[in-house]
This record gives sequence, C-alpha cells and structure tokens, in this order.
Amino acid sequence: MAFQKPTGTQDLLPGVVEKWQYIEEKVRDLCLRFNYREIRTPIFEQTSLFARGVGETTDIVEKEMYTFLDKGERSMTLRPEGTAGVVRSYVENKLYGEPDVSKLYYIGPMFRYERPQAGRQRQFHQFGVEAFGATDPAIDAEVVALGYQFCRELGLQGVKVELNSVGNPASRAVYREKLLQFLTPMKDTLCKDCQSRMDRNPLRVLDCKVDQDKFGDAPSILDSLDEECTTHFNKVQELLTAMDVNYVINHRLVRGLDYYTHTAFEYKAEGIGAIDTIGGGGRYNGLVKEVGGPDQPGIGFGIGLERIAIILEKQGIEISSLKPLDVYLVALGEAADKEVTTQLFKLRQAGYIAERDYLGRKMKAQMKSADRMQARYTAILGDDELERGEIALKSMESGEQRTVKLSDLVSELGK
Amino acid sequence: MAFQKPTGTQDLLPGVVEKWQYIEEKVRDLCLRFNYREIRTPIFEQTSLFARGVGETTDIVEKEMYTFLDKGERSMTLRPEGTAGVVRSYVENKLYGEPDVSKLYYIGPMFRYERPQAGRQRQFHQFGVEAFGATDPAIDAEVVALGYQFCRELGLQGVKVELNSVGNPASRAVYREKLLQFLTPMKDTLCKDCQSRMDRNPLRVLDCKVDQDKFGDAPSILDSLDEECTTHFNKVQELLTAMDVNYVINHRLVRGLDYYTHTAFEYKAEGIGAIDTIGGGGRYNGLVKEVGGPDQPGIGFGIGLERIAIILEKQGIEISSLKPLDVYLVALGEAADKEVTTQLFKLRQAGYIAERDYLGRKMKAQMKSADRMQARYTAILGDDELERGEIALKSMESGEQRTVKLSDLVSELGK
Repeated sequence: MAFQKPTGTQDLLPGVVEKWQYIEEKVRDLCLRFNYREIRTPIFEQTSLFARGVGETTDIVEKEMYTFLDKGERSMTLRPEGTAGVVRSYVENKLYGEPDVSKLYYIGPMFRYERPQAGRQRQFHQFGVEAFGATDPAIDAEVVALGYQFCRELGLQGVKVELNSVGNPASRAVYREKLLQFLTPMKDTLCKDCQSRMDRNPLRVLDCKVDQDKFGDAPSILDSLDEECTTHFNKVQELLTAMDVNYVINHRLVRGLDYYTHTAFEYKAEGIGAIDTIGGGGRYNGLVKEVGGPDQPGIGFGIGLERIAIILEKQGIEISSLKPLDVYLVALGEAADKEVTTQLFKLRQAGYIAERDYLGRKMKAQMKSADRMQARYTAILGDDELERGEIALKSMESGEQRTVKLSDLVSELGK
Repeated sequence: MAFQKPTGTQDLLPGVVEKWQYIEEKVRDLCLRFNYREIRTPIFEQTSLFARGVGETTDIVEKEMYTFLDKGERSMTLRPEGTAGVVRSYVENKLYGEPDVSKLYYIGPMFRYERPQAGRQRQFHQFGVEAFGATDPAIDAEVVALGYQFCRELGLQGVKVELNSVGNPASRAVYREKLLQFLTPMKDTLCKDCQSRMDRNPLRVLDCKVDQDKFGDAPSILDSLDEECTTHFNKVQELLTAMDVNYVINHRLVRGLDYYTHTAFEYKAEGIGAIDTIGGGGRYNGLVKEVGGPDQPGIGFGIGLERIAIILEKQGIEISSLKPLDVYLVALGEAADKEVTTQLFKLRQAGYIAERDYLGRKMKAQMKSADRMQARYTAILGDDELERGEIALKSMESGEQRTVKLSDLVSELGK
C-alpha cells in the first residue's frame, strides 16, 4: 500500500523548493529594508478568533475552515489567513504599548478547504504585512508600495494596483443608502446570494461573480466620502506616485466588513489566466478593537505565494535551482576512504559545498555524478597519492589537473 | 473579549524571532555545504501514514496526535514528526529513481498533544535530514556528524553523541531472546507498561522511565551483532573520529520498531535540566518498504529547535536581535513629507534599511525613535533645505552634520 499526499497539498522537492527559498529570501530582505519585522503565530488558533477576526458571514468562516476538537475538547482551526492571528498576538502581547508603530510581516502556510485548482491549494502560503498604531496616509502608501515592490523586485511584468477608499463608518453609511436605492429596483433579478447580502451587507453585493455585469451604473463610494476621507485618499495617491507605484482607481473594490476603513487595494497581474489577483489588503481601523484590544488603527496586505510562483513560471523568469558543488572528492581504495572523510569534513567546515560517493561506484560513475552536480573541481585520492600525502585536483571546466598537498587542499580551493 | 494563543503554542515576536531566523539560516547554510537539499511536505497527512510510518504502538500514535476529519470525511493528522511525510514523498515522487543518493533536509512545525513544559510545546519545530538509497557507513557517519556540526557551529558547549547499533533483524532476534531471558525473572517487579511491552516488543522495555535503574545488568545488544553489523558499526565509529565528533557508546539506546537497523544515536547536551536530549535518529532500512515503497535503505535524524533555543539562552550565547537602521529620515513640514517619501523609497530600493516617522511626532521624539532603532545616520529635511534641493545628514555616532544634495543622498550613504 502506497500513500499519497492529501488532495490540495503539494510536495516541494529539490529543483522546485529553491524557487520558494528565493521568494522567501526576497520577502525577508525587502521587509528588512522597509523596517518590518517578522512575527510568527501558531498554525492553529481558537476557532472563535476567526469567526470574530475574519467575519462570521464570510465564505472562509462559513464554508472553508479546517476546524476540529483537540483532545481537550476545545474547538481549534488551522489558520485560513494571517491577519487574525497577528492581531490576536499584537493584543495579547501588548505590542501597542511600544513607542513606535508596530510594523510586522508574516510568511507561512494557511489552510482552506476549497476545490483545488491552479493557484488555489488547500494548504497554501502567504506573505503579508500588518502595521498597527498609525493613521498617517504615509503608512497606507508604504504598505501598498511594499507589496508592489515585492512584485517589481521579483521581475514580474504587468503588475498593477487597484486602489479604492471605503471611507470611515459615517461615509459608508451614506453610501450604503445610495447603493440600496440603486439595488432595490433590480432585487428580483439578482441571485439568491445577492438578495441575502442586500439585507445583511449590501456592499458585499458588488463582489458577486454572477451579477457583476449588472452593476456598471452603481454609484461610486468615492462620491460618498466626507472631507477627512477624501483628504486621506488623495494623500495616499500622491505618495504612491512619489514611489512610482502603478495604480488605478477601482471604485467597486469594496470590502463588506464593518472594521474596514479608508484604503482598500488589490494586486493584479496580467496574462496569468482566470485568477489574476495576486493579493490584496486594506486599512482596518476597527479590527484590533473587534478582537478585544484597544482602539488602535491598522493596515496590511496578504499575497499568495503559489500565485507568485505560477506567474514567475508563466513569465519565464528563471531561478537557479541548483547550487553548484565546489568540489567532489573521489576515494580510490579502502585506505583513501577515511582520509576523504576527513578532507570532506574540513572543506565543508571551511565553507565549501563538497560531496563524495556513497554507493561504492567506480571512478567513471563518480565523475558523472560530479558532472550532474556541476562540480567546479574533483579531487581524486588513490593509494599512491595517500602515501605521498597528496591529492590530484582537477578543474572540471578546463580539464587541467595538478597535484597538491593534502594539507593544502582547503587553501588551494580558495584560489 | 480578548483571545489567547492555544495552550502549548508560542508567539515569536520581534526581538526573539531573530534568534529563530539565525538558527534557520544556520540549518540552510550547513545543509548546503553537506549537499543536502530541502524538501517540504504538507502540514497534515492521511492519519494512516503515521500509524504505519511512526508505528501503531508508539506513544505518539496512541496518545499524542492531532487527528481530525476533514470536510470530505477523511481522517487527517497534523504531522507529529518529519520522517513519515518525507518517506511518503520520496516514494510517491519516485525519488528512488534518481542516480545519486537522495540527501534531504526539512525544517518546520510539528504537532503533539502533550503536557506543555520547558522545551516541550504542542506546536514545536524540528530540523531533520533523511538520506535514502545508501548503506555505506560513510553516510551514517555523515548524518551523525551533520547534526553534531550544527550544534558546534551554533557554539553550543558540552554536546555529545550517544551511539549504538541495533544491528540487522537477524542480530536483533538473537538479542531479543537474550533480553527476554534477563527480563522474565523480574517481570512481576516491572511496571504495567513494561509487562505489556515485554510481550509485544521487549526492546522498548529498556526505554522505560520508571524501571530504568533495574536494567543495569541487562545484556548489551552489541554482543549479539553478527559480523556484518559489527564491521558496519566499527566503520561508522572510525569515520566519526575522522570528523572529530565527540561520541560515546550507549548500548541501551535501542529503538523498538522493526524497521530500525544498525546505527542509532542521540544528541545530548549538559546542563539544561531534566530534558537533555536535543534530538536523535538512526538507520531505518525497513521503513521505505513499510510505507509502500521499494526496498531502499535510509537514515536520518530530527533535532528539536525549541531545545536548541533554550540551550543557546542557558549558555549565554547572544544572537543579535536588531538589525540597525542605515538611516532615519526626518521631514519638517508638509512640503518635505512627499520628498521624504520619495527619498525613503529610493534608499530602500538601493538596499539600505531606512525608516521615517508615521505618528506626526516632533523632531525630538523622532530623534529618540532613530536612537532606539540604532540608526547610523539621520537625514533631516526642512522647507529651507527642500527649496535648495539639499538635506542635512547627521552621523549618530560622531554627531557630525553636513549638508548634501538631495540627488546625492543615496550615494553619500554608501561612503
């Protein structure tokens, strides 16, 4: 009986995993320069955190969570997204007591029970940032720019930001009325989901995939913003331009939950098929309080790394998957074997990538193995060399071979 | 209502997370030099994989697993250790078809429902390696040495390897009889667990915490090894000495499951309290077949990273938790704000770690913030400087201040 990985999960094997390592190094390097520091929260949390922090009425919470009882009969859920756990941690660890803005990033696995398709896995991976404690539009612009810069530095082509403001609760209440006036006459023609959303949360109707084409003449939320909201939004745009971010306004980009405020945005890529959203985020000035913390503002985004990996591949952006060996050591005969072990260890300790054979193969097969691993050098130790305290060092590029003292091998390779 | 992290899990916050990043970088760097390549398997697997791959009679499978039904009614389990998933992946992806030995490493979260205590969390983290396809004692020695070198390069003091051989199945059958002869007369004095293990799997009796002191005169498995096993074990020791590994023989280090063969080992650290085992591993020539694959040998280890973190702390090994800023930009006045955004972005794009204020703080408070972040420089932009296209650059170490052109700021910082 052979076992298979669970549906909707992936094995990342050598040859592919290096692409992921590269993406992650880019995340860490970029966040360092932007002065965001990593936070790691548990893989699972109390189920009630997500009901509160993600929203009871969302598809995620209603349909897609991996929820289970632990052996202590507590309901736990594998995190379906990154923000709720980070907010919980920000509150529980009282990070709001620190004098500077909390600029945090996370990267890791998330879990949603969905129908698997390209770029949509049941275990998927996200990189996200959250900045708590500031309402300055400079932080909105920085967060938007960071995700955009991530795509730019990976070399992705055709990425743009769709930008909107959902205003403050007062502005949104005004918009809600205007939107209902627009929707009510067409209510009977809308899908069941839309009809139900009209009652519970009319802004979410605009997200509907089925009825999308009926909303071309819907009022724009931007026309309902009060002066404070408009000033904030204009400043965000001015600063995005100052950072050379390619953005367009999309006034239909609304987020239905009450704790979202002001800036909302999505990263879009062209030419990757049906799913063109790489990630998105927004300001959530009500969320920290919703999760039981003080009334602190926040803003963040999440970017799907499976989608980034797909776009890198579709756009033909090559990432080296093999780090070439510095040296492959060949032992000829029993006596040489122990000395090769010592030399191999010394080389690795000195920082070189070094390898040997473990299959008792003949010299020719070992040289082939060295070739596959793109070794810069092979070093060959036979009984004669061993007796003289020497080893033959061969450049795999030039084919040139010379004899060096065993005690000089490490320093010779550094030349 | 405020939320708390689940019992037995941790938040890794800025200031602590950097220690983990450092440990992980060490893992990746070390594995690269030893030519082990990363493999990533899913966080959960089919439950039956662990029953098969870890062993039905183990405490892990009997008592400690996070098992749940997914929405498709399939029994899934959060991985309690790293080997089973890697073996499953090795078989499913037919890595055994490759011409060289598969030398793999993994690093990531594991899950066991245990009573939390120092160094024992319900979500914990392991680094491990698995090498498939070779029976050469050189690979046994390399695997043992890699884990030891990991501790050495982290600067841990007092680490040693306890080493044993559990032989091949034939040798172990001989030993089993000898051990039963030793145990049978004392059966009534042993704990219930031991009595039950005597029937099912007598080698596991030696692991018993309760009756440990009764086994001082137990026969040594090393006296039951046949010639092939002894030769293998002697060679492993010879090569460990060639790599300067500090090891001692512990003939009581046995592993009860049938697929373990030959080399068994544990990494021990002194002076960290009751739990002194950092990790361990061994050869498992029967495991790949057990999990439904071809009859391929394997060997590996797992090391607990929470324990490594504890020892680093107990031994006073400092790891820098803050990467100092290159520059903190101060904008004085509305007009300067936009220019500071542009300059900040340019600096970050050029590779510098750069920051600004987002809280509308006065200059003095901003300078304090720059101090907290250990900024090398502050750069101050007021209306006058802006008009002249200049910025004031101040060294935080010397206090020296000079005026540079805005267009030269990036290159000036490189000096």
